[in-house]
Amino acid sequence: MIEVYSWPTPNGHKVHIMLEECGLAYRVHPVDIGAGDQFTPAFLAISPNNKIPAITDPDGPDGRPLSMFESGAILLYLAGKTGKLLPADVAAKYEVLQWLMFQMGGVGPMLGQAHHFRIYAREKLPYAIERYTNEAKRLYAVINKRLAHTTYLGGTDYSIADIAVFPWLRSWKNQGVEMSDYPHLRGWFDEIAKRPAVQRGLEVLAGARKPLTDDKAREVLFGRRQVEQR
Amino acid sequence: MIEVYSWPTPNGHKVHIMLEECGLAYRVHPVDIGAGDQFTPAFLAISPNNKIPAITDPDGPDGRPLSMFESGAILLYLAGKTGKLLPADVAAKYEVLQWLMFQMGGVGPMLGQAHHFRIYAREKLPYAIERYTNEAKRLYAVINKRLAHTTYLGGTDYSIADIAVFPWLRSWKNQGVEMSDYPHLRGWFDEIAKRPAVQRGLEVLAGARKPLTDDKAREVLFGRRQVEQR
Ligand SMILES: N[C@@H](CCC(=O)N[C@@H](CS)C(=O)NCC(=O)O)C(=O)O
Ligand SMILES: N[C@@H](CCC(=O)N[C@@H](CS)C(=O)NCC(=O)O)C(=O)O
Repeated sequence: MIEVYSWPTPNGHKVHIMLEECGLAYRVHPVDIGAGDQFTPAFLAISPNNKIPAITDPDGPDGRPLSMFESGAILLYLAGKTGKLLPADVAAKYEVLQWLMFQMGGVGPMLGQAHHFRIYAREKLPYAIERYTNEAKRLYAVINKRLAHTTYLGGTDYSIADIAVFPWLRSWKNQGVEMSDYPHLRGWFDEIAKRPAVQRGLEVLAGARKPLTDDKAREVLFGRRQVEQR
Repeated sequence: MIEVYSWPTPNGHKVHIMLEECGLAYRVHPVDIGAGDQFTPAFLAISPNNKIPAITDPDGPDGRPLSMFESGAILLYLAGKTGKLLPADVAAKYEVLQWLMFQMGGVGPMLGQAHHFRIYAREKLPYAIERYTNEAKRLYAVINKRLAHTTYLGGTDYSIADIAVFPWLRSWKNQGVEMSDYPHLRGWFDEIAKRPAVQRGLEVLAGARKPLTDDKAREVLFGRRQVEQR
């Protein structure tokens, strides 16, 4: 059984949704990132960057156990393990990989900064709020343009690129975006939201989430602890 | 011959170094991102996220032409094309992929924000400068810890994970970091910097770079144009 070390955030939900889409058996271990669970030696041993999600698979390549961190790498691993949600055709596979990387390098980190400065930061900084709200709008526009031409982000089929982006766009209000301004994106989003596996994935740890704006969580996530990780 | 649409930035240099390491023939087309070249329809057709680097390969999968954007996807594509710099062993391959994703989702975007608030932003915002300087130090510490145990970021062999991270760390001064505080990282960095292919890669477009702090470049990179991409 795959062990999942996670929390109900967009990066956690990517993996929860993927496991549900692939029909793999898994057990979830909550890592309360607001309480500092990501700094325990046991967790750092599988996730040295002190971030969820991470997994261990006792039945990895050649039947040996494997542990993994970084959601994009985990999606690729699970796609490779099951042969699902990543095309076998080489050109189609690299098309999906581009949009997966677009999520990893753009959608995730930049919408994360929008959340930070719009919601979590103790100071309200107009320059930073404007910077990341503009970037959120730019990213939505790029996705909307893409989905005017293709049914799914990676091309004709639903893939790990969609699974990576979808959970981030659920918080469009927190990103200062009006989703209905992007009709192709909106249609794609609504269709994915209806998938039973997606709905089951989003239920994972649904009861565990706490606000990340109290003083303790702020100190853990944005304070000294982070810097002293060495 | 591979056509490379690029600029002498860390994300561009990843691809320049990879092409040199693989010994592939290529031709470089400068995309002056400070002048707005990334918004031309011809460039957006291959790089819809208006960012360098991008490539086209007339001899792609099944001999058909392929175009690609996102540096991490391009590294994977070139590794797949040549069989170089990504292990064939499945477990070793996923180890490299984790550190490649760590670069794509962490090192690149976060050190990019450090550059922005420390160097490029018109306003000096202490909160944002501290946030991203701390994050830079945290990332250097994570890399240093990893390199205390392994010769290369992805494991025993030099790989696309090293090629992805290395160009970002050249600007440690701009990130508010003292590289010698991280001795394992420093040793790894100095060794990679000596590789002839790395030195050739860093020479690509070396004469073209202009400061990104003049008013025109600021407006192009951080102003209205970005938002109106739709
Ligand atoms: N690039 C990483 C990002 C993971 C990430 O940012 N995780 C956040 C929650 S969504 C986290 O664990 N933060 C805790 C911390 O940084 O201390 C991935 O895609 O897995
Ligand atoms: N995740 C992308 C990031 C690429 C990127 O940020 N490129 C920058 C230069 S290093 C760029 O082209 N910026 C121009 C713009 O955003 O308009 C990748 O790794 O390829």
